[in-house]
Amino acid sequence: MTLLNKVNGDLQRERDNCTFSVTELTNLIDGDAQKTEERKQREEMVLKEGIHLEPVPAVYLSHKEKYELAVKKSCALFKMIKRLQEEENAGMENYMAVLGGSLGSAILGDGNPITLHYVMFIPTIMGQGTVEQQAYWIGRAFNLNIIGTYAQTELGHGTFIRGLETTATYDPSTKEFVLNSPTLTSYKWWPGGLAHTANYCIVMAQLYTQGKCHGIHPFIVQLRDEESHMPLRGIKVGEIGAKLGMNGTNNGFLGFENVRIPRDHMLMKNSKVLEDGTYVNAPNSKLTYGTMMFVRVMIVNDMCNYIAKAVTIATRYSAIRRQSKMKPDEPEPQIIDFLTQRHKLFIGIASVHAFKLSSEWIWNMYNNVTAELESGDLERLPELHALSCCLKAVSTADAAECVERCRLACGGHGYMLSSNLPLMYGLVTAACTYEGENTVMLLQTARYLVKSWHQARQDSGTLTPTVSYIGRVASGRRMPPWDNTIEGIIEGFHVVAAGKIGVCVNQIEKRQKAGLCYEDAWNMTSVQLASASEAHCRAIILATYFKETQIRVDSASPALKQVLLQLVDLYVVYWALARLGDLLRFTSISERDVEQLQSWYEDLLNKLRVNAVGLVDGFDIRDEILNSALGAFDGRAYERLMEEAMKSPLNAEPVNKSFHDYLKPLMQGKL
Amino acid sequence: MTLLNKVNGDLQRERDNCTFSVTELTNLIDGDAQKTEERKQREEMVLKEGIHLEPVPAVYLSHKEKYELAVKKSCALFKMIKRLQEEENAGMENYMAVLGGSLGSAILGDGNPITLHYVMFIPTIMGQGTVEQQAYWIGRAFNLNIIGTYAQTELGHGTFIRGLETTATYDPSTKEFVLNSPTLTSYKWWPGGLAHTANYCIVMAQLYTQGKCHGIHPFIVQLRDEESHMPLRGIKVGEIGAKLGMNGTNNGFLGFENVRIPRDHMLMKNSKVLEDGTYVNAPNSKLTYGTMMFVRVMIVNDMCNYIAKAVTIATRYSAIRRQSKMKPDEPEPQIIDFLTQRHKLFIGIASVHAFKLSSEWIWNMYNNVTAELESGDLERLPELHALSCCLKAVSTADAAECVERCRLACGGHGYMLSSNLPLMYGLVTAACTYEGENTVMLLQTARYLVKSWHQARQDSGTLTPTVSYIGRVASGRRMPPWDNTIEGIIEGFHVVAAGKIGVCVNQIEKRQKAGLCYEDAWNMTSVQLASASEAHCRAIILATYFKETQIRVDSASPALKQVLLQLVDLYVVYWALARLGDLLRFTSISERDVEQLQSWYEDLLNKLRVNAVGLVDGFDIRDEILNSALGAFDGRAYERLMEEAMKSPLNAEPVNKSFHDYLKPLMQGKL
Repeated sequence: MTLLNKVNGDLQRERDNCTFSVTELTNLIDGDAQKTEERKQREEMVLKEGIHLEPVPAVYLSHKEKYELAVKKSCALFKMIKRLQEEENAGMENYMAVLGGSLGSAILGDGNPITLHYVMFIPTIMGQGTVEQQAYWIGRAFNLNIIGTYAQTELGHGTFIRGLETTATYDPSTKEFVLNSPTLTSYKWWPGGLAHTANYCIVMAQLYTQGKCHGIHPFIVQLRDEESHMPLRGIKVGEIGAKLGMNGTNNGFLGFENVRIPRDHMLMKNSKVLEDGTYVNAPNSKLTYGTMMFVRVMIVNDMCNYIAKAVTIATRYSAIRRQSKMKPDEPEPQIIDFLTQRHKLFIGIASVHAFKLSSEWIWNMYNNVTAELESGDLERLPELHALSCCLKAVSTADAAECVERCRLACGGHGYMLSSNLPLMYGLVTAACTYEGENTVMLLQTARYLVKSWHQARQDSGTLTPTVSYIGRVASGRRMPPWDNTIEGIIEGFHVVAAGKIGVCVNQIEKRQKAGLCYEDAWNMTSVQLASASEAHCRAIILATYFKETQIRVDSASPALKQVLLQLVDLYVVYWALARLGDLLRFTSISERDVEQLQSWYEDLLNKLRVNAVGLVDGFDIRDEILNSALGAFDGRAYERLMEEAMKSPLNAEPVNKSFHDYLKPLMQGKL
Repeated sequence: MTLLNKVNGDLQRERDNCTFSVTELTNLIDGDAQKTEERKQREEMVLKEGIHLEPVPAVYLSHKEKYELAVKKSCALFKMIKRLQEEENAGMENYMAVLGGSLGSAILGDGNPITLHYVMFIPTIMGQGTVEQQAYWIGRAFNLNIIGTYAQTELGHGTFIRGLETTATYDPSTKEFVLNSPTLTSYKWWPGGLAHTANYCIVMAQLYTQGKCHGIHPFIVQLRDEESHMPLRGIKVGEIGAKLGMNGTNNGFLGFENVRIPRDHMLMKNSKVLEDGTYVNAPNSKLTYGTMMFVRVMIVNDMCNYIAKAVTIATRYSAIRRQSKMKPDEPEPQIIDFLTQRHKLFIGIASVHAFKLSSEWIWNMYNNVTAELESGDLERLPELHALSCCLKAVSTADAAECVERCRLACGGHGYMLSSNLPLMYGLVTAACTYEGENTVMLLQTARYLVKSWHQARQDSGTLTPTVSYIGRVASGRRMPPWDNTIEGIIEGFHVVAAGKIGVCVNQIEKRQKAGLCYEDAWNMTSVQLASASEAHCRAIILATYFKETQIRVDSASPALKQVLLQLVDLYVVYWALARLGDLLRFTSISERDVEQLQSWYEDLLNKLRVNAVGLVDGFDIRDEILNSALGAFDGRAYERLMEEAMKSPLNAEPVNKSFHDYLKPLMQGKL
């Protein structure tokens, strides 16, 4: 173990002092020891292929070269997947791991131009195609004989799907649909892989037949010739340009000029257009909610991975970085010794656990509701929809904040791309606007909450489990006195959420009485509604994190149990202090309680200090996946920063040509 | 005026409905009509040179090409400055405008590798060189015969300057200093232009003479041969690699191996080393605070420019973007009609004014204190230092939040680099960690506040003006009842700040009594101390914004006056709601007051709606400076997004070569 000898001394000391078994923590996070083993094997299997290695780091390449590298890596990756299929070694878990998650982003850090083929193209055909259509398309798609993507968003419309402008008009004379982009804003805009990668595409378009519009439907459209890859006639396709992140994703635009496709290229599992142009309605339009909810539930889990990476990097770096004098006669302290630094880091560690457990909880709920759906039971759909909306919004916003706070906690060095933190932020913040912009998401949940409030006033017994707390408050019963414990705080958050919903309902009614229509009254109250929705989500996350931890630590060793419960305490008290205004407004918390909370919080920052490195080691993120000069396991941050700097092509020559071209003439007055 | 006819109809309607004169607002912001005229002429003069134009947008270039383009542009810019000097047309204002600010960043958006030559190299020689040294160096530097930079930060030390490790050891036998980098962490790291641009450098190093260390001193060191630009013997220099932003800045590293420089290359205006090696102390070491404070004061002003740009882009875009249905029978609303959108935008507009006035106010104070310094009066230095620290921290943190909120308010399209918002965020967030990391800055101010609290307990009459409010609270006098007006809220913020400082002082004393030393007690209280410091700064910004606006609107037309006062109201009420927890803890604000504040805020979001576009038009930022597809004056956002996309080199050919190299073999099973 010569490598281990090279671990930074400060970091080694942290590990020596850790009070619990890191392996036990890792197993607990993965599920059990076998799952850990499977994950490790999967990582080893994929990484040993070396696809993630870059001769020159992608950050130094031009935009075009970045795309070309992404295609190269992506093809190597799917070739590997094909091989694993043949070796019967490609389970669903392996698929998911390389398509998304930490492992996938270790290989294609800045976006994979073929991901949507697997994540949207194939699933949409499976979900919305007839049996015949599946038979025709799935084999070819699965074997990668064709590469598809999914085009919904347009230049002018994202969130508001009904506003999409692309048209597909049925022509019974030829039994074809004719696709058109009637305006500039109707151009498809954003789909990954659309620009230069995919040759097929599912296009969401307004269906017209027999002179009538029937709304948005899915169509399979061939975009490019299979041999030459040239765009087909009437297809205007290209890339949308450079972005804050994901520049390997090859996001494209797409316009149609009288593009004709056969009738059976409309996916007809639900609605149909018959040969003569007769439109046959879908049995149930709510079924299409499924995919959207699935993606949002997946996002919550994704966010955990990003926070875990960021906080691993920042915590290890804070253990090896020494700066300033705290006391004149002592050496410079590790920056993790500053309480302000722990304040920035530890909430990140706790957030990983909080969102991981919340994500597993909503994933179970999603599976149950989906099973119920298939047997025709739609009852829990609205509740799940409301939950997935606010959890998507809160988890992405919190993750962006955590990742950025970790980056800033690394000071100037966090600004280096070799820290990997900026790239990570680019990916996380994208999730705040994609798959439903966060404010819109919160207001979707708010509609459910307001409805629940009205329902509670009628009969609080009929409330669904996640909003049942509203009944306690809406009933006007006197609240119990403030209880300065974890359970008490969580109850306080429920009281706050219910209180805020109540205030909103009153506001809306007041505004209606003052003459506004419901829509205007709603809009005027929407800042408060979004805030109420966030409060509802906070209460749910806090309660879930607390409850699920209680269950899971039951069989843990006392040492680990203690630390995991401290993390729960930290998380709950952190949020209590962060939302003090709400607690002071809606509960009977006193100034004395507040000061106790503050001391409790500071005390937890102290207690968790010794285990901080152990806690992030427990996330067990391989160096290849972290991909950070600041956060590697060995803590050789300065050495790695210099090694990474030396990879810059500018450092390959002592004098850049711009000296001769511009600088020297300028200095000699000859420019 | 054919161009004007092409303005987006929604945007034109906004302008038609504006209730005040945009020109009057612009003049007021600039100072007066003549200053506006001068600024416009300066912008015209610089932009007509076309240096800012890029054949291919820099975002598509490789890292190396970005640097080469930056050198090319930078040289063209300084050649222009030289010409203007000869034409006697290069006043200080013009210099400042192209070196920093909006105009400078329009030309060298992602960093100027020669800026530090003007901003740090020349000023340091002026400030710390003897008359002889100035005579020798300034001429050559001013004529750009040499290009210098300033190297202070090292790989291992940024904030804590005393910890720097580079050594300059005086050798009396040759009358030279010998520079060395004894460790990897002692390498200079970060200085702009250091990597491949500058051939001279001011190096901050630990001075050793006669066997004793005398701390950090400045030395002029030649890095590269003036003819060949090759690094001189013993100089290890290169670039630090790709960063989140500022990739044209050419940030470098620098190590020394027995590099010898003549004795008179030490800047000796303050401290000296005589020929025999005798060290002569500086008359006053506090004088070196000056530069640091100057830079921090400048940063506050910079931040206004960024917020103004971001909020101009997001507001115009929100006026032309239509999305969703608010009411079934009406067209899709402009997104600025959603109250949540105004909540995101209007605080940004107000923040520009708040920070602009705060920046002018502290700039005046800085000039007064500097004048006093020169006559030997150091009394107001600590107050100015405390102010510049917290204002730097709060203005950069707020600016980062405002810019990012504006970007997110543009939805997915804000993620496009052609929006210019991501690049802007990269520049603003850098300011949160450079020139003093923000948490460190807040804690510096906190030291002054705690000291003032103790002073207030002795004799509150001796408190400096910006902390005199502490006296009112520290005296333990009963606070007046809550007053739900702007003045009342501002007073409330003072009460909060003083209250928080008081709680911190109590906490520290309590912890000392419990056995902690002062340093540990301070550290354990530092999360609260940083928060107290922020509260102090908020109170100052609110009070300054309010007071300075009152003065300036005195001569404004009634229509403009009304709007500017509404903006002040909005800003104050926004922060009251954002800091409700503090107000509830430390003042007697009631739930009724809170609900009134919320309604007041929503009412202001309504009232300001009609003037939103006029208010951002009033910032008068030329399209070339905004450089945003989403925010141009004509509102043709979709057309520009497409035009920008077409500039991507990937769109220059219908089929990328990676199809033939990888995709086709993959699809045909031949990879």
